Amino acid sequence: MNAPANTEDHLVLFMPSGKRGRFPKGTAILDAARELGVYVESVCGGRATCGRCQIEVQEGHFAKHKISSSKDSISAVGPKEARYAEKRNLPAGRRLSCSATVQGDLVVDVPQDAIVNAQVVRKDADQRIIHRHPAVQLCYVEVDEPDMHKPLGDVDRLKAALAKDWGFKRLEADFHILNQVQSALRQGEWTVTAAIHQDQDDDVAQIIALWPGLKNEAYGIACDIGSTTIAMHLVSLLSGRVVASAGATNPQIRFGEDLMSRVSYVMMNPDGRPAMTKAVRLEISKLVDKVAAEGGIERADILDAVFVGNPIMHHLFLGIDPTEIGGAPFALAVSGAIKARAEDLRLSLNPGARLYVLPCIAGHVGADSAAVTLSEGPHRQDEMMLVVDVGTNAEIVLGNRERVVAASSPTGPAFEGAEISSGQRAAPGAIERVRIERETLEPRFRVIGSELWSDDEGFAEAVGSTGVTGICGSGIIEVIAEMYLAGIISEDGVIDGALAAKTSRIISEGRTYSYVLKEHAPRITVTQNDVRAIQLAKAALYAGTKLLMEKQGVETVDAIRFAGAFGSFIDPSYAMVLGLIPDCDLNKVSAVGNAAGTGARMALLNRQHRREIEETVRRVEKIETALEPKFQEHFVYAMALPNKVDPFPKLAEQVELPPRKVLGSDEAGGERRRRSRERRAKAADAAKNSGG
Amino acid sequence: MNAPANTEDHLVLFMPSGKRGRFPKGTAILDAARELGVYVESVCGGRATCGRCQIEVQEGHFAKHKISSSKDSISAVGPKEARYAEKRNLPAGRRLSCSATVQGDLVVDVPQDAIVNAQVVRKDADQRIIHRHPAVQLCYVEVDEPDMHKPLGDVDRLKAALAKDWGFKRLEADFHILNQVQSALRQGEWTVTAAIHQDQDDDVAQIIALWPGLKNEAYGIACDIGSTTIAMHLVSLLSGRVVASAGATNPQIRFGEDLMSRVSYVMMNPDGRPAMTKAVRLEISKLVDKVAAEGGIERADILDAVFVGNPIMHHLFLGIDPTEIGGAPFALAVSGAIKARAEDLRLSLNPGARLYVLPCIAGHVGADSAAVTLSEGPHRQDEMMLVVDVGTNAEIVLGNRERVVAASSPTGPAFEGAEISSGQRAAPGAIERVRIERETLEPRFRVIGSELWSDDEGFAEAVGSTGVTGICGSGIIEVIAEMYLAGIISEDGVIDGALAAKTSRIISEGRTYSYVLKEHAPRITVTQNDVRAIQLAKAALYAGTKLLMEKQGVETVDAIRFAGAFGSFIDPSYAMVLGLIPDCDLNKVSAVGNAAGTGARMALLNRQHRREIEETVRRVEKIETALEPKFQEHFVYAMALPNKVDPFPKLAEQVELPPRKVLGSDEAGGERRRRSRERRAKAADAAKNSGG
Repeated sequence: MNAPANTEDHLVLFMPSGKRGRFPKGTAILDAARELGVYVESVCGGRATCGRCQIEVQEGHFAKHKISSSKDSISAVGPKEARYAEKRNLPAGRRLSCSATVQGDLVVDVPQDAIVNAQVVRKDADQRIIHRHPAVQLCYVEVDEPDMHKPLGDVDRLKAALAKDWGFKRLEADFHILNQVQSALRQGEWTVTAAIHQDQDDDVAQIIALWPGLKNEAYGIACDIGSTTIAMHLVSLLSGRVVASAGATNPQIRFGEDLMSRVSYVMMNPDGRPAMTKAVRLEISKLVDKVAAEGGIERADILDAVFVGNPIMHHLFLGIDPTEIGGAPFALAVSGAIKARAEDLRLSLNPGARLYVLPCIAGHVGADSAAVTLSEGPHRQDEMMLVVDVGTNAEIVLGNRERVVAASSPTGPAFEGAEISSGQRAAPGAIERVRIERETLEPRFRVIGSELWSDDEGFAEAVGSTGVTGICGSGIIEVIAEMYLAGIISEDGVIDGALAAKTSRIISEGRTYSYVLKEHAPRITVTQNDVRAIQLAKAALYAGTKLLMEKQGVETVDAIRFAGAFGSFIDPSYAMVLGLIPDCDLNKVSAVGNAAGTGARMALLNRQHRREIEETVRRVEKIETALEPKFQEHFVYAMALPNKVDPFPKLAEQVELPPRKVLGSDEAGGERRRRSRERRAKAADAAKNSGG
Repeated sequence: MNAPANTEDHLVLFMPSGKRGRFPKGTAILDAARELGVYVESVCGGRATCGRCQIEVQEGHFAKHKISSSKDSISAVGPKEARYAEKRNLPAGRRLSCSATVQGDLVVDVPQDAIVNAQVVRKDADQRIIHRHPAVQLCYVEVDEPDMHKPLGDVDRLKAALAKDWGFKRLEADFHILNQVQSALRQGEWTVTAAIHQDQDDDVAQIIALWPGLKNEAYGIACDIGSTTIAMHLVSLLSGRVVASAGATNPQIRFGEDLMSRVSYVMMNPDGRPAMTKAVRLEISKLVDKVAAEGGIERADILDAVFVGNPIMHHLFLGIDPTEIGGAPFALAVSGAIKARAEDLRLSLNPGARLYVLPCIAGHVGADSAAVTLSEGPHRQDEMMLVVDVGTNAEIVLGNRERVVAASSPTGPAFEGAEISSGQRAAPGAIERVRIERETLEPRFRVIGSELWSDDEGFAEAVGSTGVTGICGSGIIEVIAEMYLAGIISEDGVIDGALAAKTSRIISEGRTYSYVLKEHAPRITVTQNDVRAIQLAKAALYAGTKLLMEKQGVETVDAIRFAGAFGSFIDPSYAMVLGLIPDCDLNKVSAVGNAAGTGARMALLNRQHRREIEETVRRVEKIETALEPKFQEHFVYAMALPNKVDPFPKLAEQVELPPRKVLGSDEAGGERRRRSRERRAKAADAAKNSGG
């Protein structure tokens, strides 16, 4: 016991965080982790009963870290741990860090999926690993029995136990805890599990819920309130896993299809705002029922909730009049993050459940954009990343570690299939992929819900009774890009009526022409107005992007992330062909699905992500396109296909380029333009070859 | 401007705090006060509009403080201040410390009554000066208008203004503020007054209420919930004045007269606890209406509330089952101070109003005792102070700066007139003063509601139709002490039947005798059982006191404070004659009225008093009489009149004294006993001569 080895501390390295420190032999791995600020879950407080604190030992020599680690560097399995392993099936190689102690230099792997009782593994939600450090944690304690010599109250002895075992400095109890504490303590025979809410390190730790004995699971919800759809995930706060997901149509649609019509409804109807608030909260409550049922849990097991949404959805959900956001100066009632109790919004979860709403970036760039930003993390990158979330408007964030700028571009709803003659929302039966034979101008297409092309055998059967119903947003992009590539429309966006002589696909509509994508029942055409609507939308999107690129002083971006449903369906090559997005290596363009939902889950599972996005939003430079004269200029040029300001290589010589600001040397500018041309050509090739 | 005088700082001394510091010429007096931590109220933040920051200059040479001060040491009245003085009637000599600046060495008086609009000055409530530093303060700010270039929300710009003008480090807004902020800011043309709640320096400052423009008054309530009576004061948080007071009978009386019967009711009836909680909260709500009406204010003007009460009242008010306090180990559900929102208790004040409940000391020593302790402050004294609050039980606190001990003695309700044959609560018609002629044994008395003695001319008319109805607690004490002094009862408490031969005032009741205090309609007698009841009660009180004195190692106390209604009516000399209280200089024995209410007001007006009592309660040593074998011993000896353990001088030679613990030298003990004898004799003299 008194051997010299004992007096020397051992190096312990935690992975994947890379945090390290020296600890005396015999230190519990859990204690070492805590001292270094490595988050390892634990409910039972080191009693080897909750099984939450699992870790693995990495063996071998880690040259980079100058450390060798072996099984002998950790203590042998003791009786408590063996009992847990036997009763609860500890996976091979896993150890309980509360019981295992440091015996030598050691590399410890903190499995990010360390889970007990994870019944359901969801494929629906993004499987990204989120480091857990939730604002709500479960803490099991053994509480002193009442003592007439030291007549402290039940709550006070509970606080003392929590302070002693869990190191909380200041603790307060929610009011509703006061009349639960007596029965919880006595029913649990002086053991209870308390849920503690602490959003910031210097916050008072708040006891928000209480159960007799050991409670080994707690949940949170992450919810993205879209104008059209509300999406909710039920997440285990202990394992981080998504255990259930559900979505519903935003019932506010009955008050107005788009955002501005909902604001108008509020302005016209004194009870419009309360009615819409009530409607959205009711639908959210139904979604809670759904995910709770699917996850097999009670509402009372839900202790935390994170919400995101665009500014109008955000205000209506919170019960705030959105009228001010409807017109200049687009003043938000509140832009910072919101902390409240679920009860404040009459949301029936656990009575102590908390609620967090991500900050809004600007009057047109909401908490959903903040969540997308948090998810994709331009502010965590060295490279210049463009994040685009296309809905009724397009929120655009461009930046890197150094600097982030953001804006909203008024694209209108064309990208969502609205304002398009045969447009529809993305749903089974909607055309989502289109190819046009360059010589014959004959089209073929694919619809949502089928893997077959329209000229494949069995297409009709595959589509079934739904039939082909219209064109969704991504289909619109493709058909117009293909029409352009096939020479049906000019760079000015005019459908070439002369082609009517060559093919029956081009038909006259009086003074303009249309392209017939599908001839019969129903006939689906692309009209000149459809092309104009997409031109306007893409010009707005591109002009906003260009504006931000100018603010950043860049002519290309290093990576592009498309968030949202539109982004999920769009083929990036066609987006680039049409000039929706700026010059970028096609391999670095990706669709990221419901990034807003992912950002909400991040904020739910790790309170440091809350600080991260609050800090990021504070320093984001907000660009209001309406105040930028250059926006209008970019917009006009960007009406061309693809864009006059940054055209396709093959158009480069044909159109008259406006004088453009060249940053860096001319030579560098020339090199940039050359690379840009190459990429554009590659995109056109990719577009040509895809779907083959 | 650049004269040497300018470069030298001036000494500024604030009275009555005595805080001092050096400040450059031109420093606003308000800023100097803030820097030194001298609390000067200000709502408008130095705009010379609220008039809250009034101070006076003291003129002359203050040798003790080595400073000379004159009218020239302060700047002349400027235009803003002159405008305020003209419009709002600044009293002569008063200056606005936000506008007046340091011009030389200066003694500044911060008037503790600095008031604007104090319509009502109450005589009812204790006129003690309480230094103000409330948990809720009003802060007027001018908020930036919305700016599209910096799209911060209304709440966020409000926070920024509050941080800038008032120095708050972390600010959060209550949820209900979010949908008020838009109209408040626009209605006030970008000026608002925010109510900020901050109970501790390291708490997040919370915006709890908001008004357009300047709001110059805010109120709080201080409420003592007694088993019998609920008393409430409405207090200006800005001036500290009590602007209205009201009281009501505790409606829980219909569920049970005394505490234990209410606990029994809860145990026997499943809906007993909710019913009693509802009843007391409803009555409190009615009292709020009363004081608000009397003070001419709205409920929404009430922003903070402090409650005290004994443990059972405390639990029932908070909605907690009090059953556990009804039996050993007398476990409180919560003993520490409680911070909540008034809304948590469905108490309708301002929607953001906060609530604070003082800590309980032990299972039988509640938040009311804590409030009495805060009010009388044994822990602030060098001398050993005994604080006694007699109700159904007697809460006893004994201590000084060094050490404080506390206990509850089971006196039963005899002191309140219960268990006494002709006993009644203190009310008009109740006998409260009694004298018995030593020779004839004829009594005379006075009743509540009349200044005349029963043998004075016009007594019957003065008493009127109410008549003489019974004896209240203080009357019981006096009649039994007088009976003892007149030789009617022995030191063992036996009514001397032999005297029946001498006077018709002594009558036989079978095996015992009674003394007839009043002969006709109704006849009021003091029976042997009445004497026994008082003997038991006083023995319990004295034994508890004696126990605490032993814990402190003292044989006498330096000062005695009687709190509560019983204490207000009792004549301290008679209390000492009967042996209710230990040996003490009679001049240092005083009744302090509703000290619990005073303590509640202190906690309302100064958040540092909250910390003071929390800290004091933590360190108070709690003595449970049931666990102390010595208590029973003291109790038995104290049954004698006055007490065998510490008897009256004239009895000292007659009764056999038990061996007693003598602290310090025998000589000192002898000296103590000699002084004790003198004081007792003086008390008997005083009793003999009073009412003459």
